[in-house]
Amino acid sequence: MRALYFDGTLSLQEDYTTPAPAAGEALVRMVLSGVCNTDLEITRGYLSFRGVPGHEFVGIVERADDSPELLGQRVVGEINAACGQCHACAAGRPTHCPNRTTLGIAGRDGSFAEYLCLPVRNLHRVPDRVSDESAVFVEPLAAACEITEALQVRPTDSVVVLGDGKLGLLCAQVLQLTGCDLLAIGHHSASLALLGQRGIRTALADTGEARVTADIVVEATGEPEGYEAARRIVRPRGTIVLKSTYHGAIEANLTMVVVDEVTLVGSRCGPFAPALRLLSQNLVEVTPLVHARYRLANGAEALRHAEQNGVLKVLIEP
Amino acid sequence: MRALYFDGTLSLQEDYTTPAPAAGEALVRMVLSGVCNTDLEITRGYLSFRGVPGHEFVGIVERADDSPELLGQRVVGEINAACGQCHACAAGRPTHCPNRTTLGIAGRDGSFAEYLCLPVRNLHRVPDRVSDESAVFVEPLAAACEITEALQVRPTDSVVVLGDGKLGLLCAQVLQLTGCDLLAIGHHSASLALLGQRGIRTALADTGEARVTADIVVEATGEPEGYEAARRIVRPRGTIVLKSTYHGAIEANLTMVVVDEVTLVGSRCGPFAPALRLLSQNLVEVTPLVHARYRLANGAEALRHAEQNGVLKVLIEP
Repeated sequence: MRALYFDGTLSLQEDYTTPAPAAGEALVRMVLSGVCNTDLEITRGYLSFRGVPGHEFVGIVERADDSPELLGQRVVGEINAACGQCHACAAGRPTHCPNRTTLGIAGRDGSFAEYLCLPVRNLHRVPDRVSDESAVFVEPLAAACEITEALQVRPTDSVVVLGDGKLGLLCAQVLQLTGCDLLAIGHHSASLALLGQRGIRTALADTGEARVTADIVVEATGEPEGYEAARRIVRPRGTIVLKSTYHGAIEANLTMVVVDEVTLVGSRCGPFAPALRLLSQNLVEVTPLVHARYRLANGAEALRHAEQNGVLKVLIEP
Repeated sequence: MRALYFDGTLSLQEDYTTPAPAAGEALVRMVLSGVCNTDLEITRGYLSFRGVPGHEFVGIVERADDSPELLGQRVVGEINAACGQCHACAAGRPTHCPNRTTLGIAGRDGSFAEYLCLPVRNLHRVPDRVSDESAVFVEPLAAACEITEALQVRPTDSVVVLGDGKLGLLCAQVLQLTGCDLLAIGHHSASLALLGQRGIRTALADTGEARVTADIVVEATGEPEGYEAARRIVRPRGTIVLKSTYHGAIEANLTMVVVDEVTLVGSRCGPFAPALRLLSQNLVEVTPLVHARYRLANGAEALRHAEQNGVLKVLIEP
């Protein structure tokens, strides 16, 4: 099959071996795939991944020997393939299984290809009323849902989302639904305008309107500087939700975290079912985030496009 | 002024004394008022209230000696007028002030009249884009927002709302926004259909579809039987949110609450600002709940109408 392969450099392979589903796995034909910042970090060396990147996808099940009812179904898939046997799995935390592989990120080829394999239990059927272009956002939208999964956001809380990239825009939309007093801060007027159209208050970073304090700050800038900005905004005894993953460490003054009694909550992958519910009930709108669509043959170009300042979601189709 | 007065029986008074605002209070001219189940309970003897009932309103500020900027503004109002001096007030719980009066419910005449008085700090300006017919729902919508104010509802939680009356329908709409797996159970197909149109799953009580278990059950039936239904549905270690207030006690087997480690959360008035945000951002829709509109002169008839089975919101205009 055709696949985009990374081994230090990114290249298109015309005859990459089509993956063979293991027991309990399905073979899924890609319909659409989304480029995430993590993919870009991977091409910069994050996690030293070697293989086919890509983990946001919607596809059609082509083979599922143990689950024939899935054949031909349109699905999205959770990206962590857990062992199902260890202590973390038994405790209901499969996304923290130490033996897990992660689609396109660790130990398992991903979605920038014609096919991928995932355990059947990772797959979620996409309701008919959710388009392909919306469904490909389920994985990052689930990551946004993980915020309210991890902590209570009260309708009376003041909440700031830092970052107007793809994830920041999704986090802001999910948080708006809590009824909270929300402010989204970013660097790109065009991106913030997508939130403004939905009634969300926005401010450009480094302006007076961005000098606020808040009960909860969601750090989704993807930039090491985001953490310090979050620290300036969060009130004493407030909470910072860390959504950014960086290639490289950031320096944080943890003494001041103690003195100000701030809570830091790391947050990564989230639940797919609520993300599908929000999309199918039209409670969030994702397709305005699509900035470009590339064929897999031009996948390297797609990633270069996604890297540009102010560019939101870039999609890849086989 | 004209007012609907209750002293054991409900009667229209043509020459009721127009209230005079105390220091820090505003005089508000009624535009629209809503009939709540609590009003009906009051006419059955609940809290032994004597005076003008009614506590859901939108009106125009006609006098506010200390806050001239409020003059002519369209407002809604929080119903608990706290003393501002006691321990509960100092602790930030004015809705639990032991010295409080409550609009149309305890110690203070309410909104089924041409005018009412409330402390200026209780008033909230209504954004232009929120209609009168929507604004009159802010008080009960705030009570629905109090659920997520009081407890964390995770997007992966299964949640059942019991009751398809006015409050149940608002609770279901607010809970839908969490992305949770929501089921609304009631007795009235027409009322449930309002939720179905918004993508919320519904079931008629006493049918097979209503035999479920859930992490969280919101009891908003207004009927003593609602509690036992909630107990049957909530899972061990789950949470029941009690929204109904009844005239009279209900019998609850609290031993089984201990054995099943169930949490009971009583929940009453809620925050107005989030309710106004949800309305102005079109995240909930309340006007389909309006079933009738009466002039104040026919107020007693309005309350009789509101009492009928399956009737949702009845509005009263001066």
